[in-house]
Amino acid sequence: MEGSFSHLDGAGSPRMVDVTGKPETLRTALAEGWVLLDRAISEKLAAGESKKGDVLKIAETAGIMAVKRTPELIPLCHGIRIEKTDLKCSFLPNEGKVRITCSVAARDVTGVEMEALAGVSVAALTVYDMCKGISKNMTIEGIRLLNKRGGKSGNYDAREEGQE
Amino acid sequence: MEGSFSHLDGAGSPRMVDVTGKPETLRTALAEGWVLLDRAISEKLAAGESKKGDVLKIAETAGIMAVKRTPELIPLCHGIRIEKTDLKCSFLPNEGKVRITCSVAARDVTGVEMEALAGVSVAALTVYDMCKGISKNMTIEGIRLLNKRGGKSGNYDAREEGQE
Amino acid sequence: MEGSFSHLDGAGSPRMVDVTGKPETLRTALAEGWVLLDRAISEKLAAGESKKGDVLKIAETAGIMAVKRTPELIPLCHGIRIEKTDLKCSFLPNEGKVRITCSVAARDVTGVEMEALAGVSVAALTVYDMCKGISKNMTIEGIRLLNKRGGKSGNYDAREEGQE
Amino acid sequence: MEGSFSHLDGAGSPRMVDVTGKPETLRTALAEGWVLLDRAISEKLAAGESKKGDVLKIAETAGIMAVKRTPELIPLCHGIRIEKTDLKCSFLPNEGKVRITCSVAARDVTGVEMEALAGVSVAALTVYDMCKGISKNMTIEGIRLLNKRGGKSGNYDAREEGQE
Amino acid sequence: MEGSFSHLDGAGSPRMVDVTGKPETLRTALAEGWVLLDRAISEKLAAGESKKGDVLKIAETAGIMAVKRTPELIPLCHGIRIEKTDLKCSFLPNEGKVRITCSVAARDVTGVEMEALAGVSVAALTVYDMCKGISKNMTIEGIRLLNKRGGKSGNYDAREEGQE
Amino acid sequence: MEGSFSHLDGAGSPRMVDVTGKPETLRTALAEGWVLLDRAISEKLAAGESKKGDVLKIAETAGIMAVKRTPELIPLCHGIRIEKTDLKCSFLPNEGKVRITCSVAARDVTGVEMEALAGVSVAALTVYDMCKGISKNMTIEGIRLLNKRGGKSGNYDAREEGQE
Repeated sequence: MEGSFSHLDGAGSPRMVDVTGKPETLRTALAEGWVLLDRAISEKLAAGESKKGDVLKIAETAGIMAVKRTPELIPLCHGIRIEKTDLKCSFLPNEGKVRITCSVAARDVTGVEMEALAGVSVAALTVYDMCKGISKNMTIEGIRLLNKRGGKSGNYDAREEGQE
Repeated sequence: MEGSFSHLDGAGSPRMVDVTGKPETLRTALAEGWVLLDRAISEKLAAGESKKGDVLKIAETAGIMAVKRTPELIPLCHGIRIEKTDLKCSFLPNEGKVRITCSVAARDVTGVEMEALAGVSVAALTVYDMCKGISKNMTIEGIRLLNKRGGKSGNYDAREEGQE
Repeated sequence: MEGSFSHLDGAGSPRMVDVTGKPETLRTALAEGWVLLDRAISEKLAAGESKKGDVLKIAETAGIMAVKRTPELIPLCHGIRIEKTDLKCSFLPNEGKVRITCSVAARDVTGVEMEALAGVSVAALTVYDMCKGISKNMTIEGIRLLNKRGGKSGNYDAREEGQE
Repeated sequence: MEGSFSHLDGAGSPRMVDVTGKPETLRTALAEGWVLLDRAISEKLAAGESKKGDVLKIAETAGIMAVKRTPELIPLCHGIRIEKTDLKCSFLPNEGKVRITCSVAARDVTGVEMEALAGVSVAALTVYDMCKGISKNMTIEGIRLLNKRGGKSGNYDAREEGQE
Repeated sequence: MEGSFSHLDGAGSPRMVDVTGKPETLRTALAEGWVLLDRAISEKLAAGESKKGDVLKIAETAGIMAVKRTPELIPLCHGIRIEKTDLKCSFLPNEGKVRITCSVAARDVTGVEMEALAGVSVAALTVYDMCKGISKNMTIEGIRLLNKRGGKSGNYDAREEGQE
Repeated sequence: MEGSFSHLDGAGSPRMVDVTGKPETLRTALAEGWVLLDRAISEKLAAGESKKGDVLKIAETAGIMAVKRTPELIPLCHGIRIEKTDLKCSFLPNEGKVRITCSVAARDVTGVEMEALAGVSVAALTVYDMCKGISKNMTIEGIRLLNKRGGKSGNYDAREEGQE
C-alpha cells in the first residue's frame, strides 16, 4: 500500500485501511514543533518563572489529552491503545520560541505518527491560547515527524535541517 | 485583562476568564497554515486531479469538524456557537505546498481566533495523514492568525511577511 | 440559499453556512422512525413488561444524549443550544415494531431538524443493540421529518403516507 | 447469553456484558441502508456530477468517523479497536435513492455489527443534511445487517427481500 | 416544575425539560468537594512543594475541561455556554485533605449547578489518579452545592455543617 | 514506579506512564459511592416505585457510558478496552441514601480503578441532576475503591470502616 494514497480506494472514496492481517509490534514516533512568540510574550515568560511553568504545563496536559483523541480528529486514523506519551514544552528565551516534542509508543498494528503530531499541534495551540492576551503575533512552525520505529514500512528519520 | 496571562489567576491556577459582563458582538477570525510536501507527494497530487480533490476535501471536512470541537481541545477556551466556517485547502503544485485558510464568524462575547487556528491545524494534520503512505517528509508551517475583527481588544492584522 | 446544496461552495468545498445575519427565533422539529423486530424479539418484549420498559428507556436516554451531540456527528451542522427534547420509544406488539418519535426545540438561528433525526437514529440503533442477542433480524425504517416550525424557509409538514 | 436481553441483568439494570473469557477472533459485519430522495434532489444530483461526488464523499467521511465513535453513542457497546472500515454511498438516479453500505472488521472479543449500522446511519443523516436545502422530503429506509462473520454466535446472513 | 422529578414525564420516560419560554439571566453556582488522602500521600505532597503544585494544577485543568463537557456526561442536562469557571484545588497538610471548589457562571435559561459539581468531581478523580501510585487509600467526600444564584427557583445556600 | 507521583517526570511535567513492557493480564476494580438525599427526595422516591426505578436506571446508564470515557476526562489515564461493567444504584429508604457500586474488568496492561471510580462519580451526579428539582440538599460521599485485582502492584482491599 506504501507509495499511494492508501486512504482512498479506486473510486476516490475514503476508507480506513484494512490492517486485520498485520501483526502487533512495538511502534514509536517522535514529533516536534515550535511556537514563535512576539517579543512582549517572551519578555513576560522570561520575567515570571512560575507563570512560565504554568503556561507550559497546561499546554503539555492539553497535548497529552489530544494524543488520545487523535482518531476522533483525523477521519481515517485507526484507534490505537496508546501505551506511553511524553510531551515537553520548553521555552527558549534567547530565541523567543517554545519548542514542543511529543513521543508516543504503542504495541499495535499501525503506527503512532499522527498521535505524536496531533499532540504537538494541540500543545502549540494551547500555548497560543494562553499567550494571546499579550499579543496575537505568534506563529506555529515546523511541525514534523522526527522519527518513527516499527511496522512494515520500517524506520524513518527526518533529514537534517540543511538537507530539506 | 489584555497584556497579561489572562488564563492564569494570581496564584498561577488555570481559569476560564469571566466574560459575563461582555456584550455579544460579531467576531470574525481568519487563520492560515501550510503543509510542505515531499516531491513524490506533489507529483502524485499533480498527476491525479480527482485524487487531489478527494484529499483536500476530506481535509476540509476534518478541519470544519475540528472548529466545532475547539473548546474540548484547548483547556481554557470558552464554548462558542459558531455561525460560519469556511475552510479551504489549495494545492500549489509549483511550490509543493498545500495552503490552508480558515475563516470563522460568530456573534458572541469572546473571539474565534482559536477556532480558526484549530481548524487549520486539524486540516493540516489530515493532509499529512492522507499523504504519509507516499512519504513522511512533510512539515506543517506558518500557522498564524491573519486577522480578527470585533471585541474589546479590537482588530488585528498580521504584519507583512517581511516585517516579521 | 434554499434550492441548492448550501453546504457546498462554488468549488464543491464543504462549508458551514454563514448564519451571522439571521435572527434568533423559536425552531421546532418532530421526527419519527421505526424498528421492525423479529418475531422472537416481539414475543420476548410482549412477555416481559418490565424488561420492555428497560429496553425502551435506555434507548430513549441514548437518543436524547445523541440529540446534543448532533454537530459532532454531522460535519456541517451548526451547534445549537437545545432547549427541549422529548424522545419516545413505543412498542407496538401487534405490528412487531418499535415506533420512535423525537421532538426538539430551540431559540436559535438555524433549525433543529438534524437534531430530531439524529435522536431517532441513535435510539433506533440502541433498540437494535439491546435486542440483537435474541435475533439480528431487525430493520430500521422510515426515519423522516414529520414537521418543522420556524425559520426563514418556513414550516414543513410531511406528506401523508399515500402521497409519498 | 444468546436468546435473552443480555444487556439487562436479572433486575433489569443495564450492564456491559462480561467478555473477559472470550477469545479474540476476526469479526466482520456488513450493513446497508437507503436514503429516498425527493425528485428535486435527484435531479440536482443527476445534473451536477461533481456536486454529487462531494455530497457522497462528505457523507462517507462522516460515516467512517461515526464507526469509531459507536461506543460513545450506544450505551452498552464495548469499545472495539476497528481494523477496517469501507463505507460507500452510491446515487441511483433512476430510483431516486442513495444506497449506503458499511463494512467493518476487527480482531476482537465482540462483534462489529453496531459499528457497521452506526456508520450507515450517520452517513444517511449526512446525506439528508447536505440535501435538505433543496427539499426536506427524504426518508431513511432499510438500515439492516446484511451479514456478520466470526464470534460464538456464528455467522448471520440477512434473509432475501421476499422472505422478510 | 419544582417539587417533582422534572426530568421524567408522566410515563417515567426521560426528557430534557422545555425551557423555551424562560428568560436568559445570570446564573452562578459554587460547589465544593474533598479528597481524603492516605498519610503517605500527604507526606509526599508536603515534602515536595513543586510536585504538589503540578498535581493540583493538572487536576484544576481537568476539572475546568469537565465543566464544559457536563451535558455529554449527564444525560438530561441542557448545553450551556459557560462564561466563567474558577476551579481551585488546595492541599491542607494538617488535615491530609485536598479541598476543591468550582465556581461557574453563565447568562442562560437554566442553572449551572451540574457544571460546578461535575468540575469538582473530575478534579477529585484526577487528584486520585495522580496520587494512586503512592496509595489507593483515598476517599472523595462531601461533593455538594454551596450556593447558586439566579433563575426561577431562586437562590440556594447550603445549610451550615451542624444543620445537616 | 510505585511509591512516587508516577504521572510526573523529574521536571514535574505530566506524562502518560510507559507501559509498553507490561504483560496483558486480567484487571478488575470495584468502587462505591453514596448520594445522601434530602428527606423530601427520599419520600418521593419511596412513594413512587416506578419513578425510583427510572431515576436509578438512567443514572446507571450514564455511569456505564462514563466508564468508557474515563481517558477523555482524566488527563493521564491510558485508554483501556473495557470488557465488563456492572453499575448498580440502590435506594436505601431508611437511610435516605442511594448506594452506587461499579465493577469493571479488562484484560489489559494497566488497571481499571479510575474507570470504576469515574462510573460511580457520574452515576452520582446523574442521581443529583434528576432529583435536584425537588431539593438541592444532597451530598455525594464516600467515593472510594473497594478492591482491585491483577497487575504488578498486586491486589488492594479497602480497610474496614473502623480502621480508616
